[in-house]
Parts: sequence; structure tokens; C-alpha cells
Amino acid sequence: MTETLVISIDAMGGDHGPSVVIPAVAHALAIVPANVRFLLHGDEGALAPELARHKAVLQRADVRHAERVIGMDEKPAQALRRGKGTSMWNAVEAIRDGEAVAAVSAGNTGALMAISKLILRMSADLERPALVASIPHERGVTTFLDVGANVDCDAERLVEFAIMGEAFHRAAHGVPRPTVGLLNVGSEEMKGHEEVREAHRVLREGKLDLDYRGFVEGDDITRGAVDVIVTDGFTGNVALKAMEGAARFMSNELRTALTSSLGASLGALLARPSLRKFRDRLSPPPAAPLLGLNGIVLKCHGGASERDFAQALRVAVDLAQSGFAAEIERNMRRLPAALADAQPAPADGAAAADGAPSMESPK
Amino acid sequence: MTETLVISIDAMGGDHGPSVVIPAVAHALAIVPANVRFLLHGDEGALAPELARHKAVLQRADVRHAERVIGMDEKPAQALRRGKGTSMWNAVEAIRDGEAVAAVSAGNTGALMAISKLILRMSADLERPALVASIPHERGVTTFLDVGANVDCDAERLVEFAIMGEAFHRAAHGVPRPTVGLLNVGSEEMKGHEEVREAHRVLREGKLDLDYRGFVEGDDITRGAVDVIVTDGFTGNVALKAMEGAARFMSNELRTALTSSLGASLGALLARPSLRKFRDRLSPPPAAPLLGLNGIVLKCHGGASERDFAQALRVAVDLAQSGFAAEIERNMRRLPAALADAQPAPADGAAAADGAPSMESPK
Repeated sequence: MTETLVISIDAMGGDHGPSVVIPAVAHALAIVPANVRFLLHGDEGALAPELARHKAVLQRADVRHAERVIGMDEKPAQALRRGKGTSMWNAVEAIRDGEAVAAVSAGNTGALMAISKLILRMSADLERPALVASIPHERGVTTFLDVGANVDCDAERLVEFAIMGEAFHRAAHGVPRPTVGLLNVGSEEMKGHEEVREAHRVLREGKLDLDYRGFVEGDDITRGAVDVIVTDGFTGNVALKAMEGAARFMSNELRTALTSSLGASLGALLARPSLRKFRDRLSPPPAAPLLGLNGIVLKCHGGASERDFAQALRVAVDLAQSGFAAEIERNMRRLPAALADAQPAPADGAAAADGAPSMESPK
Repeated sequence: MTETLVISIDAMGGDHGPSVVIPAVAHALAIVPANVRFLLHGDEGALAPELARHKAVLQRADVRHAERVIGMDEKPAQALRRGKGTSMWNAVEAIRDGEAVAAVSAGNTGALMAISKLILRMSADLERPALVASIPHERGVTTFLDVGANVDCDAERLVEFAIMGEAFHRAAHGVPRPTVGLLNVGSEEMKGHEEVREAHRVLREGKLDLDYRGFVEGDDITRGAVDVIVTDGFTGNVALKAMEGAARFMSNELRTALTSSLGASLGALLARPSLRKFRDRLSPPPAAPLLGLNGIVLKCHGGASERDFAQALRVAVDLAQSGFAAEIERNMRRLPAALADAQPAPADGAAAADGAPSMESPK
């Protein structure tokens, strides 16, 4: 008999709480292996009517009553002070206590990061867990990190992102050997800051087990030039939001264009199924892992639909079943030596970095 | 009689050289005031056939023979070594020699930046001229800088970008008092690096003549939350390319969707004029100023059409006629005092920045 795999769920999190989470668990029963069980943290009174409607859930889930909930706009510091006993806190604590192998929440991101860090502690040398965005491109998705958690990043942190992002991409997308790139600017004479140049040396010369392909640029994120793109949390957050903004602007303009005349409206009507497929292609996967923790924590976006949350549960299972954590640990152990190896000789270090060929982006 | 305004042109630059530039000058004659004249730098032999086709040009332009041309992929260092006597070099030199008030080139960006810096010298304390992108939004364009020239920026440089970008936006778009924002990340607990926090203090507390509105985020670039958005050249370059990539990805996906079925294809055919308008709305203005030089230099994109280059000439005229340079100088003179004013008291500086309200983005 296979071992039972328990996924811990913050059943109160997100904009819709149990009314989305419980149907999502019901939905997930069909897409996760039979050895998976769920632990539902939340207010019994709020969960009961949903569970009555989805009776199959209780055969594969246990409810743990939690009276309180963390508000969607509570500050992380506040969440830490008064978070104990909330559904989110308990969902994460279940990992530490060995009751579950992963936790999923659609609640407040900052609170989830702070609480996870406090309860599980960091395995990597970061201020807080790294946030991953999964950006669609023509043939799949790009794993892009850090998108907002660690504003100041030295070379070591950037390399840690590479190690964690690579392992996540393999576990979540089944790519045996994901390729990795380091985000930089294009112009030849001024390849990035010192931090980026040094991380480049470590990734290229250090004996890490990674398929590192060199520097990439901002437009490579949606081009799928490599599987994993690494940057600091400031640049990553700005780039992610800039892309979201550009996509929103284009969608609005397209809507305006397609309702601007009778012909256009009729055309849009005819093309509607295709336009809907187009919109679906642009929605990023719903679950983002918090990387660098001693444990698997997934953040589902606040407005997640039933289907989104079910997919997030499936990703949690994929991660828990993979060698993800062990692979990260193995490469992390190589990191100190890799950092030492890549120390430039005082005289020619800069020259070596300058001469490094940047990846040729396929046009 | 009004004074003659001379615009100096690198007639050989860009992917198409004189075959686009000369028709563009002909086109520009109709959209610039009668007191504007042009100085055409380039190979007489190459210009002659185009000039024969556009006879009106010679009544408002003089040709200055230049035998050599800077290649589109020549390195800046190489361009500096062998650039003397090229059409680009001479176009910029005409400003220094008092023959022209502005120069326009569609040639190699890195070379134009290096040559302009060498010949005109910097007026601001920057590594190299700041590059401006003009990003379309629903009601106009956002002036966004620096998009790639100055990778490492301290607070003083960020404030210089604000001063220059604001003056440019007013001159180029006729907005009497442009609003200015500083690009930052969203999460409350970690508002940016120290450079961003300090620039925020200077812009808010220093007595500069600017309508500063505080922090903005990546998606505000296409939202038009403020007129001018300021960031360092690393973040700016990544954000710009990320947005370009996202727009390209969406266009490709849309094309695929609209040719995926007979209904969709028919729909696309009916909506074609509107889809074309949609595409036009997304193209950014063709001319980017190089800011921070003692003189007005505009870079037109390499693949510029006749209409694009004509528009760039018009922007050059607008800038030359405006109080642009004087306004920048006036605010730059206030900068040292503003920097001194905004020095935080050692104890409460960070707290002051933390407590600063970030701009509420309109949803």
C-alpha cells in the first residue's frame, strides 16, 4: 500500500473562502492520486453547509476547527502578532508538526510569507521566501523569480533562486532538465551590476547541477528562451506588474476596437470562442510556491476559482511527490564551494565577465 | 521675422538610410513651422537620387557631405575611435558648432549615445545620456526613464531623471504641469532600496519645481497613473522589454486565435479595420530623446518609417522651441539644496520613508 500524502488547506483564505475551497477539494479528488488526503483548517460553522453539498470530500478530508481568520489586508507584522490559531497559521503549522507534507492558501500573501517563515524557518539565506510567477509563453510557461519578496539580492541569493526555481520547474512541469537564465540588460558595454556579473560567474563556473544558459533579457520572459529566469525581487516585481499592466491595456484596447463598429462587433461575435481561448491562454497558472522554506507552501491567488484552487492542490501533490526538496538541498550544499570557485582573480575577473557570451535570443 | 531653427539630420542612419530619411523630410515640411531648416549629413551620391525625387526638400535643406557611416552593430567604443567624419558624428557636431539646435538619427543607439556624450558633454551627473521610452496608455503616453543607459543609480541620479523627464514631457506633449512618480514595489514592509527611499525624500521634501506624486508600481506604466515614471536603467530596461515581450506574445496568440477556425477568420476579416487601429494604438511614438546632454539629440528607431521619422523631426522642433533646456537647468540648480534638505536625521530617516503614503493607484 502506498503511503498517505496529506495536504493541509487554509479553507478560509481568498476572496471567496469555503464557498470556493470546498468545491475545489471536491474537484481535486478526481485529479490527484487515491493516496492523497486533505486537512481542512477553518470555522466548522462556515464549512458545514459547503461540506453538506460536497459529501465526497469528507471521505478524503478531516476538518480542524479554527475560529479566526487572517484578513486579506492585514499587515504581515499584525498577522504574526495575532495569527496564532487562525486557519492560515494552523494550515502551515500542520507541516511543522508532521501532519501534512504541503500547505495551500489563497489568503493574504504577505501574511502567508511571514507566518510560513516564522513557523517553518528558512532553508535558504533569504530575507523571506522567494515568490515565483509562472508566465505563459508559446510552448509552456516560464518560471520567473523572485517577483517581490527579496528586494536586495547579492550574487549568492540570485544563485539560490536559480537552484530553487530549477527544482520547482522540474517538479511542477515535468521537464527533466530545465534551462536557467539570469535576467540582465542588453547593451554590450554595461552588462548589469556587479551582483549579476558575480552570480553569472558562479552559475557558469561553480560545480552546480544546473543547465545554466547565461544572460537573458526582459522580452525572453514571454519568449520561453529558457525555462527558469532569475532576478532580484525589485526587478522581478516591477517586470511582472509591467507585463500584467501591458496585457490589461491590450485587452482593454482590443475590447474597445472590437465594439467600435457594427462590422467589428459582428466579427468579435464570430470569433468569440477563439477569443475566449486566447484569454485563457494568457491566464497564468494559479499557484505560486513560496521557495526557501523548510516545507512546501503554495499561495493560490485571492480571486482563485474552484478550478484554479483545485489545480493548486494538484501542484502541491506534484511537489510533495517529487524529489524537489532533496534536489534543492543537494545543490544548496554545493553552493559554498561554487561561490569560492567563482571568486575572480583580482586582475582579470571583470574582463572574464565582460567576455562572457550572452545567450543569443532566438528571433 | 522669426529666427531660423536648424535641425541637423543623420541622413544615412537607420535600417533604410536616405530612402526613408529624405521622404520623411519632405513629409515634415508640411508639419513644422516655416522658419525651420534642415541640415542633411550623408553621402552626396546616396542622397542625390532621393533629393531628385523630392525637390521641395532642397529649398529648406542643405546637404553636408559625409563619406562614412556608422554601422548598425558597431560597438560604441569602436564608433568613438573611428566615428569622426561619419554622418552621425557630423550631425551631432553641428549642435556644438552652433549650426543647429537639435540632431536626429535613426542609427545605432549605443554609438549615438557615446558620440553625443563625447561631443556635447553631459549636463547631468550621469554615466551616459538617459534613454526615454514613451509608453502608450488609454489617455496618452507615459514618459518612462531611464530605460537602459545608467545601470547603477543613486538617489541624485533618480531625481535628475525626474527633472529631465518632466521637462521633456511638457515640451513633447504640451502638458503644462506633468505629474511625476517613482517606480517601486508594492508590498508595504519593503518599500524599495535605500536609493529609492532617499530619492522619494528629496522629491517630496526638496524645493524642486515638480508635481511629485509618490511611489508607483509596474502596472502604472500602462495605466497612465502619472505622466512621468522614473527608475534606474537596469529596472527600466527590463520593464520595457518585458512589456514589449508581453505585447508581442499577445499579438501572436491573438493572430493564432483569429485564424484557428472559419468563424474566427471571418470574424477577424470583419473586424480588420478595428484591429488595425488597435495595432496602431500600441505602437509607441518613434522618437526618444537622449537626456542629460548639453544639446537636444533624438534617437529615432532603426526601422522607422517615413512617417515615424517625420514625427521625430517634429518632436525635435517642439523641443527646440520650448523652454525645455532652461527648465531643466533651473531645477538642476535647485538639486544640491534639495539633496541637503532631504538628508534624514540619523534616527528617524527610515521611519519617515516607511510612513510615506504610497500613491493610491486607481483600480
